[in-house]
Amino acid sequence: MKQKPSTNKSNFLNKAATFAPILIIFFLTSCNTTSKEAESSIVTAITDPLPSWNEGEVKNSITNFVKKVTDSTSAEFIPVNDRIATFDNDGTLWSEQPLYFQFFFVLERIKAMAPQHPEWKSKEPFKSVLAGDIKKALASGEKGIATMLIATHAGMTDEEFDTIVKEWVKNGKHPKTKKGFTEMIYQPMLELLEYLRDHDFKTYIVSGGGIDFMRPWAEEVYRIPPQQVVGSSLKVKYEMKGDTPAIVRLPELNFIDDKAGKPVGIHEHIGKRPVFAAGNSDGDYEMLQYTTTGDGARFGIIVHHTDSVREWAYDRKSPIGNLERGIDDADKYGWVLVDMKRDWKKIYPYEK
Amino acid sequence: MKQKPSTNKSNFLNKAATFAPILIIFFLTSCNTTSKEAESSIVTAITDPLPSWNEGEVKNSITNFVKKVTDSTSAEFIPVNDRIATFDNDGTLWSEQPLYFQFFFVLERIKAMAPQHPEWKSKEPFKSVLAGDIKKALASGEKGIATMLIATHAGMTDEEFDTIVKEWVKNGKHPKTKKGFTEMIYQPMLELLEYLRDHDFKTYIVSGGGIDFMRPWAEEVYRIPPQQVVGSSLKVKYEMKGDTPAIVRLPELNFIDDKAGKPVGIHEHIGKRPVFAAGNSDGDYEMLQYTTTGDGARFGIIVHHTDSVREWAYDRKSPIGNLERGIDDADKYGWVLVDMKRDWKKIYPYEK
Repeated sequence: MKQKPSTNKSNFLNKAATFAPILIIFFLTSCNTTSKEAESSIVTAITDPLPSWNEGEVKNSITNFVKKVTDSTSAEFIPVNDRIATFDNDGTLWSEQPLYFQFFFVLERIKAMAPQHPEWKSKEPFKSVLAGDIKKALASGEKGIATMLIATHAGMTDEEFDTIVKEWVKNGKHPKTKKGFTEMIYQPMLELLEYLRDHDFKTYIVSGGGIDFMRPWAEEVYRIPPQQVVGSSLKVKYEMKGDTPAIVRLPELNFIDDKAGKPVGIHEHIGKRPVFAAGNSDGDYEMLQYTTTGDGARFGIIVHHTDSVREWAYDRKSPIGNLERGIDDADKYGWVLVDMKRDWKKIYPYEK
Repeated sequence: MKQKPSTNKSNFLNKAATFAPILIIFFLTSCNTTSKEAESSIVTAITDPLPSWNEGEVKNSITNFVKKVTDSTSAEFIPVNDRIATFDNDGTLWSEQPLYFQFFFVLERIKAMAPQHPEWKSKEPFKSVLAGDIKKALASGEKGIATMLIATHAGMTDEEFDTIVKEWVKNGKHPKTKKGFTEMIYQPMLELLEYLRDHDFKTYIVSGGGIDFMRPWAEEVYRIPPQQVVGSSLKVKYEMKGDTPAIVRLPELNFIDDKAGKPVGIHEHIGKRPVFAAGNSDGDYEMLQYTTTGDGARFGIIVHHTDSVREWAYDRKSPIGNLERGIDDADKYGWVLVDMKRDWKKIYPYEK
């Protein structure tokens, strides 16, 4: 499952041998620089940090931004503490068609839990899910979807839920590609995350998806630790189960981290306005707006799904990943539109 | 205002010169270690990282814990990613008598805002505050206190509130010491924070105090950045003010980060159980319990206020910083009680 972006540094020791004399001087003159920084500067100087991005305007805009804001002699320099980058997840870091992947998880959970819930056989939207009619189940609308979410995400401890999610990540397969869901992440975005981190950006997920659904695997898959994942949540409570304390998941929505909720989630979790934001749908509009209207250099990027062959092509008409205002206002706010078909050499890490 | 714990590393370059030959070998054999780690190991080997702590059992228990969990050959080794340390603020990192410092802020705000609120002259609890009768204002109980908090903390943007708090930090003086409030932080705890960070712990504040009240100064005072501050909060909303987006503070409580709320706040913000927790009152009981009942090595520490001369002495009978269950169950959970009078050589950084 572990995804290693192409800017990996496993050859660093070999390179270090060749560069030994330079390195000695470098280390002795840069006691305030961590060796990770030193390592990364050397590696990025010789290799392309974004090898899965085709050359062109979009790639240049990214590297130009990072260069200018990390150059301490530049007027647009951003101090390390303010280098906050927020990424939507669904459709921005991994695919989201034909359904949000978390919804495949919900469907699988409903099937797995059905024996304990005989009443579901005659109760919508569960009845439709169990009969294999997903369209009808989804037609139950927001209320039905919330019912399914709560039924499958609440009523256990955080650790139990963590285990369930990890099992699903291990065994679940996407119906079209037959690949694991966490294999359907975007190689160019992995490289972008790594490139930003190599330049001392702190990378966050800010997603409409469940915070506790993403945390169990985000660290291994994206190298984003739990405390840098912001998402929608259920209420939880702390209670003792005998001598053992537990965080128990309650059947009540706590926070929806979507649209105008994203800047609120950012405020609550990060307490600082990002300088870089990436999204793909109008659910990310307010996060992009909040980020890019701040003072100083800012960067907003929208992944536009234009590749019906290698991935999916959708925007204005799609119920999932709907993108209209984002396209209409991209020029106004200076947001960079990634044309997936044109700008990405490779979509998934498993492609040859 | 900036507080620099005594384990500062400004002399590192001088020391590095003396140790140059060793350092060259060290750097060349430790490409996976950051130079910060190297630097810190060398410095801590020669200096006492906790100079304001008197020698004895308490100090030893801290350093023994840190040594064993950061020694990769130890059975109790804790990987860097799991080194999460959470600190209460009021009474644990700074003083909290005769009133929580945030309440002094509330009182000052009520006085400053009174001209815009003529109705307060005849409306409790404001009337009592304006008449200088704090005791009577507090007698209004939880509801009255919430009313005062909301009146002074809501109705502006996050940036406006940030500015107000910073002004207060700059100008406010404690009625007894006549010092600035952020000068009344505990030097031994600053050293402990720094010592843990030098060993790659991530240090968090987890406080009943307001998250947005602490964030404006926690980074400068404690070197704890906004995203590592967890606290109580009001609801906020995102809205456009003309072309400018704003986070607007609403007159409604969102979350109370106290007692059983602390593990909930930790779950929400960090998503991981801490391995180290520090508190001083029963408001920290559940955080300590949640932390120290986890698997593997854990550390819980309670600052016991025993010094009526240099600070304050209070525990079981005090309405502020009430500590009863924490003392009663310290043995059961292996929590270390800091006897402020006995264990701390110095309380505040400004003492000679």
